[in-house]
Amino acid sequence: MRDVYIIGIGQTKYGEHWEKSLRALVVEAGLKAIEDANIYSKEIQAIFGGNMSAGSTIYQDNIGSLISDFSGLSVNRIPAMRIENGSASGGAAVHAGFVSVASGFYDTVLVGGVEKLTDVSMEDQAEIVSGEVDQEWELFNGGTLAGLQALMARRYMHEYGAKREEIAMLPVLSHEHGSENPYAHFRNRIKVEDVINATMVADPLTMLDMAPASDGAAVLILASEEKVRQIKPEVKIKISGSAMSSDFMSLQSRENLLELKAVRDSTEKALKMSKSDIKRVKIVETHDSSSIMGLLILEEIGLFPKGKAGKYLEEGYGHKDSRVAINTSGGLKAKGHPMGATGIGQIVESVIQLRGKAEKRQVHNADMALAINVAGTGSASISHVLEVV
Amino acid sequence: MRDVYIIGIGQTKYGEHWEKSLRALVVEAGLKAIEDANIYSKEIQAIFGGNMSAGSTIYQDNIGSLISDFSGLSVNRIPAMRIENGSASGGAAVHAGFVSVASGFYDTVLVGGVEKLTDVSMEDQAEIVSGEVDQEWELFNGGTLAGLQALMARRYMHEYGAKREEIAMLPVLSHEHGSENPYAHFRNRIKVEDVINATMVADPLTMLDMAPASDGAAVLILASEEKVRQIKPEVKIKISGSAMSSDFMSLQSRENLLELKAVRDSTEKALKMSKSDIKRVKIVETHDSSSIMGLLILEEIGLFPKGKAGKYLEEGYGHKDSRVAINTSGGLKAKGHPMGATGIGQIVESVIQLRGKAEKRQVHNADMALAINVAGTGSASISHVLEVV
Repeated sequence: MRDVYIIGIGQTKYGEHWEKSLRALVVEAGLKAIEDANIYSKEIQAIFGGNMSAGSTIYQDNIGSLISDFSGLSVNRIPAMRIENGSASGGAAVHAGFVSVASGFYDTVLVGGVEKLTDVSMEDQAEIVSGEVDQEWELFNGGTLAGLQALMARRYMHEYGAKREEIAMLPVLSHEHGSENPYAHFRNRIKVEDVINATMVADPLTMLDMAPASDGAAVLILASEEKVRQIKPEVKIKISGSAMSSDFMSLQSRENLLELKAVRDSTEKALKMSKSDIKRVKIVETHDSSSIMGLLILEEIGLFPKGKAGKYLEEGYGHKDSRVAINTSGGLKAKGHPMGATGIGQIVESVIQLRGKAEKRQVHNADMALAINVAGTGSASISHVLEVV
Repeated sequence: MRDVYIIGIGQTKYGEHWEKSLRALVVEAGLKAIEDANIYSKEIQAIFGGNMSAGSTIYQDNIGSLISDFSGLSVNRIPAMRIENGSASGGAAVHAGFVSVASGFYDTVLVGGVEKLTDVSMEDQAEIVSGEVDQEWELFNGGTLAGLQALMARRYMHEYGAKREEIAMLPVLSHEHGSENPYAHFRNRIKVEDVINATMVADPLTMLDMAPASDGAAVLILASEEKVRQIKPEVKIKISGSAMSSDFMSLQSRENLLELKAVRDSTEKALKMSKSDIKRVKIVETHDSSSIMGLLILEEIGLFPKGKAGKYLEEGYGHKDSRVAINTSGGLKAKGHPMGATGIGQIVESVIQLRGKAEKRQVHNADMALAINVAGTGSASISHVLEVV
């Protein structure tokens, strides 16, 4: 297995792009990434496209071919496949791209994720984003993604005696960091009271616990050691760990509502692959599709004791100047959550940090980052460890 | 790069499965494949799931996780991703699985494709299956998949002076072979006049030129040489070539309506990888989503001269007892076309033939097969060469 490096990144601003189509978004991010990598587009040998919902939102499937066509790469006949794992589609696409380079199949590949949600009504959005939970056993009976995560939040408060205010700490932190990220969907700061008093979505979770429906695209260029030697990037960033794991799809099938076994497994494997451990990680991007999901992930990977994540955040952990910085991008909550792009955007932010280019939100001495991208209530999880080498 | 073998196959009957859900179909085929491979399910290390339309038909995305869950494999936390390339989703999933084993990442993986179309109305089906062409530039303006393929058929007749009757020869052949396949959606034989006089879909193509909307699932177990040595299968079948290529998505962007550049490219690459050429191939499964697509593919891969495929079929080529057998499964037309399963089903049939287990439709001395799975009007193509070794 060969080493895999990230030589180019690109992203659109996340938010409501009424004036841009899905293809325009992904091409915008793609051109930035190719330019950033300082390569010719014809050097790209394969495309891995992450997208969750275009089939449902704009009746457009076959997104791999669409990206290949509109980026002009189909003239080179390169393979282009779409990878879909709900909200974890982006991370899964990165993992597939990683495997293809690590294995020696390709030297240079493009991994691009995109989502366009503003083309459909908010009612349709709610149903579409719930497509990643079990339709027959959960959604059909009213178990939307928000509703299921609310169940987890209730159980969390019951099991650990966690206070509502503690759960609200993650959105507050994500917005604080997001306010410094020019690409973020929301750049306002919020307070714990704002979260608790916002419009209720699924008790106890309010609108400010939930990640928004965002449009946007994010792209990475992955390359082999050989390619990196040609390009000579200023900062050499390696994907030192990449792992994907699965769990039961429906909450009812799991032994414990508060255990995210796929998250633990993918993170342990990725850290092991990188010959490292959680204590060395300086930056974590957690998948806060809701506040509770984000917190459960931070606990599952061993960053905080079970039931205590909110308390630690209250004490200042997670801030960019603390021992471990969490969601410096603004997380799914403030940076935005265009599903297919989300897992890739987490890695784009990590690369910006590892390059020391995050300006006001820069983490001091950032040399290792961990990004965790999750589907639904934890049915799939992809963890990536990035390192400056 | 290591050799990759097919050690297990499974499929459902193709057709209208009103009484079975998507998950039931894929688990049925999966269990057959695992049993056929003579392994324990816990030996499977990753899942690649091909599916095109479940997000649109039953609001179910995240199909990789669904398969992992319902096959009981999520207890092992194995990675499970969905691959989507329209009608070529199955072939793309096989290619992804191939890469993962060839590269040394995994020793044993499951590739499973499934589609459930009878859950929606025929009107919705027509729109959903057209999701693989360009929504903005084609479908929105009335360019359905059938309409676009009808344009190609008209051009074919104009350019080469091919007769309508010649185009009808492929459905006739597919139905003849399909009548001997117990898994086929349609087992009736048809005549050229039946095709020409059937209900018009898009002039000149009638209902009997078009592949049906079928439910069904097909599964392969892929394995490394090492694994094969453990299992000692009766017949050792290798994937000696696997390649995927892309082309412009919309017909209007192509220089020539009748050239399928992705098909030629993926097939040339797969044959080159297998150190072989088209003359050695005994069995071809072509992607006859319509008669014209099936014929254009046969010409593009060099089996027949341009514009002459129908004429050759009239002379008996393509029949199971001829020099090259075409669509012994019944093809998409008679075997059925559950998009995510189609490309995998082509390979299941090829394996049955190479094992010498195709009974009445058995091809004599079958030792090499080629399966070509295509998206839309040719935007993506995946070619697989299989050999008895």
